[in-house]
Amino acid sequence: RPRNEVLFFPSELACVEHLYTLPASAAPSASAAPSHSCLCSLPHGVETSFSRFLRHLMSASSSLDLCVFAFSNMDLSRAVLVLHSRGVTVRVLSDKDYIAITGSQIGVLRKAGICVRSNRNSVHMHHKFAVVDGRLLLTGSLNWTLNAVQNNMENILITEEPDLVRPFIKEFGRLWEHSDPV
Amino acid sequence: RPRNEVLFFPSELACVEHLYTLPASAAPSASAAPSHSCLCSLPHGVETSFSRFLRHLMSASSSLDLCVFAFSNMDLSRAVLVLHSRGVTVRVLSDKDYIAITGSQIGVLRKAGICVRSNRNSVHMHHKFAVVDGRLLLTGSLNWTLNAVQNNMENILITEEPDLVRPFIKEFGRLWEHSDPV
Ligand SMILES: [Zn+2]
Ligand SMILES: [Zn+2]
Repeated sequence: RPRNEVLFFPSELACVEHLYTLPASAAPSASAAPSHSCLCSLPHGVETSFSRFLRHLMSASSSLDLCVFAFSNMDLSRAVLVLHSRGVTVRVLSDKDYIAITGSQIGVLRKAGICVRSNRNSVHMHHKFAVVDGRLLLTGSLNWTLNAVQNNMENILITEEPDLVRPFIKEFGRLWEHSDPV
Repeated sequence: RPRNEVLFFPSELACVEHLYTLPASAAPSASAAPSHSCLCSLPHGVETSFSRFLRHLMSASSSLDLCVFAFSNMDLSRAVLVLHSRGVTVRVLSDKDYIAITGSQIGVLRKAGICVRSNRNSVHMHHKFAVVDGRLLLTGSLNWTLNAVQNNMENILITEEPDLVRPFIKEFGRLWEHSDPV
């Protein structure tokens, strides 16, 4: 039975430090291990919408295809960098105009050696979806910004249903072919 | 087997006139009947992402719960008005700040007697989802604007999967309770 889950935002604040060191093999349903070693001031051992989202993202073991209009969230940028360093094949497609904006993490990703492309025409790239290991779709209204996570009413739908995942994989491939390296 | 479908935008342009007069009982999979009587200059008898979307929306026979940040698209506004006139119970939740913007259709809906509410706090209401007859979820990146439909790269995911629809119904109810009439 394919996994189906919906997350709503704004998310409560909680420490997500432990999620960056989780092995990719840890199931997203694994309990949130409290970070005994973390000294930050955020609550620990608390599962939130954001930690669920991050957990699914960090579960990538072979590939991450990311198609997102706005990407300035540093926690999410760190997640993508960690996955890249683990050997996960990361492809990032972002909006041409947004990439140049202050706080955009796209330059950071690119400098780390991650393949980044943007739409070559003036059409706004307004998607916010990710496909993990060609199997798990994360999509919704949430841009990858701090504001979206902490301040906005947003949703992320998570599914393994092939009839829903397949079209997104196909559309990512199509857009990737029609985009230029940043 | 629950219906699952994904639509991508920008949509081609085509006449959707005939969809407003379809009986609610017509299945969304019914073929697009060409509007022999329509004299407009748009292509006829062509199925597009937008016509698929509109077709699902117009299939509402008892209720439509709509939670959308930006609502200025006149074709979609007309759809909601037609459903309301057919006796479908329509509830619209929209963003407090966006409602006041030029071109917003929220005032038109309210004047027609449709229940409209908006968030009472300063949190941005960034959702773009609709639940048809408490059964069919339409959600994605697409705001209900002309720009989103015709110019942007956007997605709408359509599903009857209860594990995905149920959380959105619950969240709509929660937000509705915490919102004020416009
Ligand atoms: Zn901590
Ligand atoms: Zn026509």
